[in-house]
Amino acid sequence: MIPDNKELQQRLSRITPMLADAGIDGALISSNANIIYTTGCLFRGYVYIHVTSKRAIPFVIRSGASTPEGAITIRKPEQIPDMLTEAGIQLPDCLGLEYDTTSYSDIVRLKKAIPAPSAADISPILATARMTKTEYEIGQMRHDGLHQAAVYTRVPTLYKPGMTDVRLQIEIERQLRLEGSLGYYRTRGPLMETNLGTLLAGDNADRPTPYDFAVGGGGSDPALPTGADGTVLSEGMTISADMNGCFNSYQTDMTRVWSIGQIDPLAVKAHETSRRILRRLEKMAIPGTPAAALYNEAAHMAEEAGLLTYFMGYSQKAPFIGHGVGLELNERPVLTPRSKDILKAGMTIAIEPKFVIPGTGPAGVENTYVVTESGLECLTPAPEEITQL
Amino acid sequence: MIPDNKELQQRLSRITPMLADAGIDGALISSNANIIYTTGCLFRGYVYIHVTSKRAIPFVIRSGASTPEGAITIRKPEQIPDMLTEAGIQLPDCLGLEYDTTSYSDIVRLKKAIPAPSAADISPILATARMTKTEYEIGQMRHDGLHQAAVYTRVPTLYKPGMTDVRLQIEIERQLRLEGSLGYYRTRGPLMETNLGTLLAGDNADRPTPYDFAVGGGGSDPALPTGADGTVLSEGMTISADMNGCFNSYQTDMTRVWSIGQIDPLAVKAHETSRRILRRLEKMAIPGTPAAALYNEAAHMAEEAGLLTYFMGYSQKAPFIGHGVGLELNERPVLTPRSKDILKAGMTIAIEPKFVIPGTGPAGVENTYVVTESGLECLTPAPEEITQL
Repeated sequence: MIPDNKELQQRLSRITPMLADAGIDGALISSNANIIYTTGCLFRGYVYIHVTSKRAIPFVIRSGASTPEGAITIRKPEQIPDMLTEAGIQLPDCLGLEYDTTSYSDIVRLKKAIPAPSAADISPILATARMTKTEYEIGQMRHDGLHQAAVYTRVPTLYKPGMTDVRLQIEIERQLRLEGSLGYYRTRGPLMETNLGTLLAGDNADRPTPYDFAVGGGGSDPALPTGADGTVLSEGMTISADMNGCFNSYQTDMTRVWSIGQIDPLAVKAHETSRRILRRLEKMAIPGTPAAALYNEAAHMAEEAGLLTYFMGYSQKAPFIGHGVGLELNERPVLTPRSKDILKAGMTIAIEPKFVIPGTGPAGVENTYVVTESGLECLTPAPEEITQL
Repeated sequence: MIPDNKELQQRLSRITPMLADAGIDGALISSNANIIYTTGCLFRGYVYIHVTSKRAIPFVIRSGASTPEGAITIRKPEQIPDMLTEAGIQLPDCLGLEYDTTSYSDIVRLKKAIPAPSAADISPILATARMTKTEYEIGQMRHDGLHQAAVYTRVPTLYKPGMTDVRLQIEIERQLRLEGSLGYYRTRGPLMETNLGTLLAGDNADRPTPYDFAVGGGGSDPALPTGADGTVLSEGMTISADMNGCFNSYQTDMTRVWSIGQIDPLAVKAHETSRRILRRLEKMAIPGTPAAALYNEAAHMAEEAGLLTYFMGYSQKAPFIGHGVGLELNERPVLTPRSKDILKAGMTIAIEPKFVIPGTGPAGVENTYVVTESGLECLTPAPEEITQL
């Protein structure tokens, strides 16, 4: 479903004042995620934002199943200036472009195509605008979370003794797809190359990954070094699923843990510490709270529990405990010790205080939340205990 | 498995003369696909190619399960000049960078980090080098093709009357994963956002897509407008699968067609024409043949059969009949009417002369081939007839 015009106007009204403040009077959006954010659908082309008139004009090269309202058809971006002039829109004095997510070649071409006295980066502005979600967006993510949670509760029915981690992951993937997952999610940047998510069991959770994931895994191929590696699920192991929660353009991010037989009490302690951290942050994370404070509180609680060694990885540590999530899996705010982000009502964040216990495997829970005046509302409601398989 | 040094040296020896010809004495590789091409594995960081000494030096910020030989650990790219100097390597006079696949922000940063009197784009050089595969690479793709073909022959056992296209796709995805598919494939550029491939049935094959796929489909969400759309598979329809063939870092690309009940003889005719086109091109495509000639011959044969209206789409047409494939799904050469590419032995290309028959669905076969002195060798061997479900 494409959101209505009121919704799209609301999004635009978050972007245009920030563009104006940055001295940008016209901006050309070129990334898929931001084309979807500003029009509700994906097409090949661009969205031109005329700041003074608060208009978003879709320039469509090739349309998908849906064509956005007010679309102007073009063959190439070089036609945009003439089309703008025809529409009575003055060419920009300062042209905003997406420097962070568009290739160097494309930006160089767009700068030539739409000559302007100056140009500026709009990537941080769009990322800031998208941090705080509208009611419609939160509704989409609420839908995602319910379906993702439903599948996670079915995991014990999918397990069979002697399975490998890959085999269990395949069955969870199938259940997610049957539940409506698109089998895809958008990520930002080149360092998140998996679109089905990861299942980690035993010491594979401690194998390093070059990717931007909290806990990595070695993967099955040196060219895709993350996730399940063929480990046979065995007695004494913990197993975590952190898999695809994209049932519409939006997504939720969620991790749960299962166990086989008796596990090291240290893993249980770590898991319960993760849950206590979440309970604490759920209350603490009201609007105005610095994102860094959430990280610091989590690290402090891990330390008090004597678990800092295992916190956010053992051999290799992730330098964050959470991140914004929405159209992309890795949005702002970032929950790092040095984050400058401040929480606002309507932000949606995944919080994942995780531990890796050598000889046992992963521990800890991840939920996606929306920030409200009274703290965090959980969008991924499902039992959090380690469930024995 | 990481390829041995001899293999990596062979790849490097294809790149360095082209860099030298372009006046580039040092090149910094930053894209995942080219990091894998030059080192055999993926890590966070860069590969510096020193042209005169024919050396590829991996600068690793964060390693994966495998660390490339001779890796130098860095925290940030700004350390590279000092590290090069320490290693006795002169800083470049002309620095090559990947303009097509690296973001504007990253290229601007890299240009500052490694100051050089001039800079140039190495994207086309790397794409040209990667067009022609080594024996090792062809072996990897041969492996992919056998497994992809094995799954395609099992499709009739997965069909149940009353299924939707999405439902059948999910079962094929699962079989691909059980067969060893990584559940991911790399694509180049922002216009191929699907990592499991597409299943198309009936008139959904004719719904337009903004993506770079030969035949699109409307998809299940306006933000992911390609592939299956929930169509119930019914009497008189054809169904095509063009799905994930990535069982290692490499991949093959393959399409087969199935039918339900009696179908329009026009679809059968179109399908047989596609097969005749493939037989013709398999003989014609010897080294030295222009890629454009393959397109023109295919279009000519479609026209002679009176099927040009349906060729490469009905409402929306794809402007190509094939493309290179390897580490990425969409490599060079491109088989378009204006392609400047000339076939060489060792190139691997997917050829997909397809048709869309209104009221029935997709027709046509896609195989991945390697160019040999005597024509094309098929890497995706499986029966090509339309199989009734």
